[in-house]
Amino acid sequence: MWANIGSMETTRSGRPRLTEQRRPGTTAREEILDAAGELFTTRGYASTSTRAIAEAVGIRQASLYHYFKTKDELLSALLHQTVTPTLTFLADLQQADPSPEQCLHTLAAFDGAQLLTSRWNLGALYLMPELREARLATFWTERERLRLAYLDLSRIILGATGVADDAADLPFRLVESLVNMWSRTPQPDRARLAGHVADACLRVLGVTDDLPALRAGTLHHLGRNDPARVGRL
Amino acid sequence: MWANIGSMETTRSGRPRLTEQRRPGTTAREEILDAAGELFTTRGYASTSTRAIAEAVGIRQASLYHYFKTKDELLSALLHQTVTPTLTFLADLQQADPSPEQCLHTLAAFDGAQLLTSRWNLGALYLMPELREARLATFWTERERLRLAYLDLSRIILGATGVADDAADLPFRLVESLVNMWSRTPQPDRARLAGHVADACLRVLGVTDDLPALRAGTLHHLGRNDPARVGRL
Repeated sequence: MWANIGSMETTRSGRPRLTEQRRPGTTAREEILDAAGELFTTRGYASTSTRAIAEAVGIRQASLYHYFKTKDELLSALLHQTVTPTLTFLADLQQADPSPEQCLHTLAAFDGAQLLTSRWNLGALYLMPELREARLATFWTERERLRLAYLDLSRIILGATGVADDAADLPFRLVESLVNMWSRTPQPDRARLAGHVADACLRVLGVTDDLPALRAGTLHHLGRNDPARVGRL
Repeated sequence: MWANIGSMETTRSGRPRLTEQRRPGTTAREEILDAAGELFTTRGYASTSTRAIAEAVGIRQASLYHYFKTKDELLSALLHQTVTPTLTFLADLQQADPSPEQCLHTLAAFDGAQLLTSRWNLGALYLMPELREARLATFWTERERLRLAYLDLSRIILGATGVADDAADLPFRLVESLVNMWSRTPQPDRARLAGHVADACLRVLGVTDDLPALRAGTLHHLGRNDPARVGRL
């Protein structure tokens, strides 16, 4: 796979790749994103140059610009990785017409596992002041779509349990808080923690009795989409 | 009050204050912290100079250094504001020997109200990569003390309800997630939201029946410590 990218770059810049592949990813684009994810989350966005990212991948800065024209574009692509797979999963899940409780539980378990099992804690970028200035409109639109999907499900459930509507945003926030637990949770425990957070999303809305059945349903739905996940929750 | 500070500065630096007071606070130290809180949370820590903070207060940089020798010292003082009052409140609360459920509910309501009603969203600073390099050992030690206090209470409650121990860190994380809800919650609704998050802390641990009594107990405990809070939850 890499051979193709390498020859493409040679054609464009007249220079071959500087070093052997250093990063996971099946394309140069993925390698660049991995390096940017590491540097943005460990050194900060303002302190990271595109030159430093290119060096961390082992390519020239000119080659990086072939994939991402600006640092904002790179940041935007990384942030989309934290939301787009979950929105795609949700659209697929809704085809199966689950109950609101089941839909929220399965959504939270998938979303939480996405956040917790990524190589870098990309969700930690959400609160960076620099994000307000970066051109990230499409990311914020997608993230708001996801938040509203949680909110719609939560409100239906609150209507049935009678818990105050002020709790409606808490399931989304509980999943988001996994960003703060990321560094403290050992890798093998992360998918299991996502399952417990899914339970907690229902509990804060006043659902208590149906949790074992909801968990079984979530394993079923996740298994249909990604068999590798079943054993991990 | 300001007159005293002004004359002290005149004595030390030989220069009077440049402008009228621009910031809330009864001391110059509080005004400086307010300006730093605004600039760190809106522009970022790395992008804010001590010169910019001094300008935002209307004092000279040399006067600022009289109160805070480094930018790290300023950041540390701001972060302590998010934890120290809650630890003081908890020590006082424990004197009244409340049940673990009551103690957790009241702690979460106080802590949440502290985070939500501050003028700047200081909790948003927690995830900044720059924080790892700043000299903030005493802040992290205090914050870990607070987290462990939540954890101890949560574990006792989980022992009674039979919910899995994986949920033990969620009450602390729920309160922390108010940082993400800060900008979206109108000021008048913030203290009420803190009360609902306190309920949610108990719900995620499997407590459902005693919430009205716990809420009444929390109003009692908060009222004893700060009568102004009672009407706001």
